[in-house]
Amino acid sequence: MSLAAKAPEAGVRSVTIEKHEPDGNVTSSNDIVAVEEPLEIRLACGNDHRAVAITMRTPGNDIELACGFLFTEGVLRSPESVVAVRHCGRFPSQENTIRVELGSFDGIDLERLSRNFYTTSSCGVCGRSSLDALTASGVKPVSFDGTKISGAVVSRLPDKLIETQDIFGETGGLHAAALFDANGEFVDAKEDVGRHNAVDKLIGRKFLDSRLPLSSKVLFLSGRASFELLQKAAAAGIPVVCAVGAPSSLAIEAAIEFGITLVGFVRDGRFNVYSNEHRVIA
Amino acid sequence: MSLAAKAPEAGVRSVTIEKHEPDGNVTSSNDIVAVEEPLEIRLACGNDHRAVAITMRTPGNDIELACGFLFTEGVLRSPESVVAVRHCGRFPSQENTIRVELGSFDGIDLERLSRNFYTTSSCGVCGRSSLDALTASGVKPVSFDGTKISGAVVSRLPDKLIETQDIFGETGGLHAAALFDANGEFVDAKEDVGRHNAVDKLIGRKFLDSRLPLSSKVLFLSGRASFELLQKAAAAGIPVVCAVGAPSSLAIEAAIEFGITLVGFVRDGRFNVYSNEHRVIA
Repeated sequence: MSLAAKAPEAGVRSVTIEKHEPDGNVTSSNDIVAVEEPLEIRLACGNDHRAVAITMRTPGNDIELACGFLFTEGVLRSPESVVAVRHCGRFPSQENTIRVELGSFDGIDLERLSRNFYTTSSCGVCGRSSLDALTASGVKPVSFDGTKISGAVVSRLPDKLIETQDIFGETGGLHAAALFDANGEFVDAKEDVGRHNAVDKLIGRKFLDSRLPLSSKVLFLSGRASFELLQKAAAAGIPVVCAVGAPSSLAIEAAIEFGITLVGFVRDGRFNVYSNEHRVIA
Repeated sequence: MSLAAKAPEAGVRSVTIEKHEPDGNVTSSNDIVAVEEPLEIRLACGNDHRAVAITMRTPGNDIELACGFLFTEGVLRSPESVVAVRHCGRFPSQENTIRVELGSFDGIDLERLSRNFYTTSSCGVCGRSSLDALTASGVKPVSFDGTKISGAVVSRLPDKLIETQDIFGETGGLHAAALFDANGEFVDAKEDVGRHNAVDKLIGRKFLDSRLPLSSKVLFLSGRASFELLQKAAAAGIPVVCAVGAPSSLAIEAAIEFGITLVGFVRDGRFNVYSNEHRVIA
């Protein structure tokens, strides 16, 4: 429901949740969630500096993350090529930009950088700017449409998904994303090695069928809920997102910002509500 | 060990594995894994066409995936803007490139596309080209260094990781990546909401300490093993990768190509070996 200030450990944050038990009991409780924030990685050489990548990460070991990313992407070859590594962004999100200074750009194949390649010139990314970018791209908060879902329906979603899964379920290596209506009736499901792809496949079908926005629908995820998945749900106008796994801090912030009810840890008849709990009936 | 031809279901593939049981029994067996292959998404308008994204996905529902991705990224606004969607790559990987044809590029903010933005002009990506790109970037097969690991050591890795995990473990929302030596002695561990980030943090520390390549070390992953993670292990020269979860088809192919022993489903004393099983002693 609300996000407290960062805990002393930068990688986790305390949040207030509504905890639903199998017997229908509902209590307000505290939970610890993993922090998810963007990190912009910049390469610098003298006065020449450029943003080469942005990744959604948990703060901590940012120096290692930047160097490990640049090494495994083939940009850095030896630690001797690195002159200095430091955070460089502007307040208040200075900890979310890191600058890797090199003695020379010679032999650096900047084209090889692929994951989340940004050509932005702005320095100082933060979760707030990710939310603003979402608004800027035209995504609006989910309209108040009176959607309600009962706790009993939420609890049964995992079993209902299993009933509908095809041969893919055999591998244990696929993420599933499913759509249900607010009464728990199955609408559609898609699977993929990438959780974002499973959600894209689901939403893409409805887009092609001119069925967006998905008002009064429930998105059910077989894994965790990250910012990227909430971003996609918001774009499709889905009011309720339920996940078998944990949500990240930025997923919760996005859910609050876009009026989405975010439910996590849907297991064994229990679940936690992280935002807009008014849509869940005990 | 070897990958059979694609099963009739394009999303899964049959592989031959070495199955290790808690009693030390080892059998050759078949397993079904999720297919992971790149999909290049191209936007076209008349003769103007450009690659805007590449994502590692499980084949199937590619049309939905492309349109869902472009919609949720704010590139497409309505299905009426889409003239046609079809696969367009060259043999033998024609199914891995998809072309979304629009009536007009007006109002399309191509800059907004962020995830895996490629500026390649080549058409026709496939798993093979991903492996070739890895070789081209200078990644060499792991040298034969005589590393051996016993099945008993592999089985104990999950418990050993839990012993070393700090407060982050509390959230249930973090992926862990850990390094052990071949005797199962703990070396280092890092955690993150993104599994690729956890591996980058781990390798980045060793890179900065001039400790690469990580010969005779074991990378242990708390989740699944995808191509991206094997790519990072290969870049760091790690000979053994063990995962609690399932491997994807392309992760297995990369492991075979780069001489890495890939172990999956390390749970309850059991595990499966997918490649280079000579390093695992029953």
